[in-house]
Amino acid sequence: MAQASIGDSEFDRDTALTARAPGVYDAELSAGWTIIQAVNGGYLLALLGRALGDALPHPDPFTISAHYLTPSVPGKAVVRTETVRTGRTLSTGQASLYQYAEDGTEVERIRVLASYGDLDALPDDVRTTAKPPAMPPYEHCLGADAGPAVIPGSSAITERLDIRLDPATVGWAIGAPSGKGEMRGWFGLADGRDADPLSLLLTVDALPPTSFELGLKGWTPTVELTTHIRCRPAPGPLRVSITTRNLAGGFLEEDAEVWDSADRLVAQSRQLARAPRL
Amino acid sequence: MAQASIGDSEFDRDTALTARAPGVYDAELSAGWTIIQAVNGGYLLALLGRALGDALPHPDPFTISAHYLTPSVPGKAVVRTETVRTGRTLSTGQASLYQYAEDGTEVERIRVLASYGDLDALPDDVRTTAKPPAMPPYEHCLGADAGPAVIPGSSAITERLDIRLDPATVGWAIGAPSGKGEMRGWFGLADGRDADPLSLLLTVDALPPTSFELGLKGWTPTVELTTHIRCRPAPGPLRVSITTRNLAGGFLEEDAEVWDSADRLVAQSRQLARAPRL
Repeated sequence: MAQASIGDSEFDRDTALTARAPGVYDAELSAGWTIIQAVNGGYLLALLGRALGDALPHPDPFTISAHYLTPSVPGKAVVRTETVRTGRTLSTGQASLYQYAEDGTEVERIRVLASYGDLDALPDDVRTTAKPPAMPPYEHCLGADAGPAVIPGSSAITERLDIRLDPATVGWAIGAPSGKGEMRGWFGLADGRDADPLSLLLTVDALPPTSFELGLKGWTPTVELTTHIRCRPAPGPLRVSITTRNLAGGFLEEDAEVWDSADRLVAQSRQLARAPRL
Repeated sequence: MAQASIGDSEFDRDTALTARAPGVYDAELSAGWTIIQAVNGGYLLALLGRALGDALPHPDPFTISAHYLTPSVPGKAVVRTETVRTGRTLSTGQASLYQYAEDGTEVERIRVLASYGDLDALPDDVRTTAKPPAMPPYEHCLGADAGPAVIPGSSAITERLDIRLDPATVGWAIGAPSGKGEMRGWFGLADGRDADPLSLLLTVDALPPTSFELGLKGWTPTVELTTHIRCRPAPGPLRVSITTRNLAGGFLEEDAEVWDSADRLVAQSRQLARAPRL
């Protein structure tokens, strides 16, 4: 199979939008990006990010804050955007994803506030002190096809992603979680499409939750997820590390870093999520 | 001077709101919270946070994402809130701060999206693995009155705050920045008011920028600031640590942690800011 390209891939087709009016877009949420029954929050964020990139005068999400309101389901959706402010180097916009109740009324699923710019216009000074995550090479990491189901097998999204987890963070899959709030792995799209700023919005929320390695089973629904896209990613596989340091009071944070093949820290995200009940 | 109390302090008076209509509040931005001429972004966030705490059915900001649009100035302002969703344990709201152009039209300064809950209703399980920042005791840290101006002397906000910086992170004040993206210190309000969830929104944006210790002079305007309030702070001084690990492409992130006197990690924030020109 030929490698899919940016603009012509599963991810691009499933985040495609049809303009209904200026700033208003019809979409079809694909069942291909579900985990159990839930539509993945990063996929939804990418779809909203695409709408704002079209509606605003600047193309790339520099920082995008999403508050998740109600669970999305595969099927029809509409994205409504608002241009909040346009400036020379940055523009700020807002967008909401809605689906439809049985009586046809709109139900809001997610609302985002975002500041957009042009990544290609940034100076190329890099004074990053963070280091890429230490993990084994791709071929020594574990995919969904490796022995135990490291990602629950009933999830359609596993067929769209090429995730290989660091063996040090997959103890949960065989009932032996490390007790550390860490999850690491290699990330790619299964059809070989390279990463771009929109697909990075999917990447930051695509690994299993750190709570699995903390010995917690069950769902960790996202309350809020803010992502900074700092650089257009170089072609090739990405490395993702997720860390939780503050599991308390029934909530936890997840900090994600995404590194590209040129060792640039291309995305940083943090989410607040509900912890599974102890 | 008697210690000010929560509800009766400089901070409370200067973030006071007058309801004009349901969800709409008049405010007066105080000149007492300015850095050079700019009104501090954390003070503004606290004011927006107070408005949402009044407008929403839940009292406390669990996560609040602010995008800064135009610089605020001391004087009249209005906050307009919108209730986005109300749930049993969480509510989501939006708020904007406006000031007035010469012709009386409203100019939007900041827009926030936030999810509120009730901190006092959370379970008291704490499995935090993060550690409080290592720094000298309060009496060995440096305040605004210590020799060189560790905080620019023309800033009114220095009189409202009791910040004592770790000597290891004040090299910039004598022309010898450490080169590390770190800033640490003790934080209190000058009139002795104890911290609460609203004042924590000020605390996360009150220390000098990490860029000073990276050898960069000048302003680091906030593009976006997201704060998680995780616990009602215990009475007594707070410790704040701020870290920058990704200064690149003309932008940087600042991660703040706030620890209370009971060693709880009560707030975590991350902002994206423009770096001063090199």
